[in-house]
Amino acid sequence: MPERVDDNCIFCKIIAGDIPSAKVYEDETVLAFMNLQQKNPGHTLVIPKEHYPNVYEIPDELVGYIAQIAARIARVVKTQFGAAGINILQNNDPAAMQSVFHFHSHVIPRYAGDDLLAIWRSAPATPEELSANAEKIRAGL
Amino acid sequence: MPERVDDNCIFCKIIAGDIPSAKVYEDETVLAFMNLQQKNPGHTLVIPKEHYPNVYEIPDELVGYIAQIAARIARVVKTQFGAAGINILQNNDPAAMQSVFHFHSHVIPRYAGDDLLAIWRSAPATPEELSANAEKIRAGL
Repeated sequence: MPERVDDNCIFCKIIAGDIPSAKVYEDETVLAFMNLQQKNPGHTLVIPKEHYPNVYEIPDELVGYIAQIAARIARVVKTQFGAAGINILQNNDPAAMQSVFHFHSHVIPRYAGDDLLAIWRSAPATPEELSANAEKIRAGL
Repeated sequence: MPERVDDNCIFCKIIAGDIPSAKVYEDETVLAFMNLQQKNPGHTLVIPKEHYPNVYEIPDELVGYIAQIAARIARVVKTQFGAAGINILQNNDPAAMQSVFHFHSHVIPRYAGDDLLAIWRSAPATPEELSANAEKIRAGL
């Protein structure tokens, strides 16, 4: 059993087996299963068994491991579903479309014209803006 | 110098210093810099110095390391830009919005109502569909 469990978290309940899921992969650390919303068939979530709400709180090493499992699954989804592309997406906070507050990475098969996910707004920046923004981040790292 | 270089790749040219960039972080393995399109201010890309076009070809260990660096940057972007949320997005193939064919992870600050990135289509699935899709992936792992 995980040490970190949130009793109100649907993903913790899936990990505990209290809610069924269509499992793709499981080991001591992570679980991968079909998202209930199959945005396209094969849409998979990879989650840590320990409950961490988002990227701000999860340990770096665990993020790295989840990303490796998501990459392996992405290759298989591409082949098995004949996808034209794959997005690997990890959302944090409602403003970024997170709806379950247990860290998860989406592996999303894509097809030309499926209009599933898009970055709309064109947003060119000047070299000065780029430098100023980079400096803000460097200062915090 | 990286061993794997694509002479026609804009990111390889940025790594070589032949094209300028607003750098956020650099070590022997990865480079992080401001995306030219600042979808919101602080929009950062994390790339490997070795040229791999996408998640299908990049080694797992390198995916994991890039994800760890992206996570660290995500936390700083959230704080330094007062973002309401963060998406970490990695696109593969044009059908999945990849436009530069050198593996990269986007760290994208988000704000409520910025309408930047959305998953449109609602796509509920039956338990049978979920099981069938999961089995396809398990068979390939």
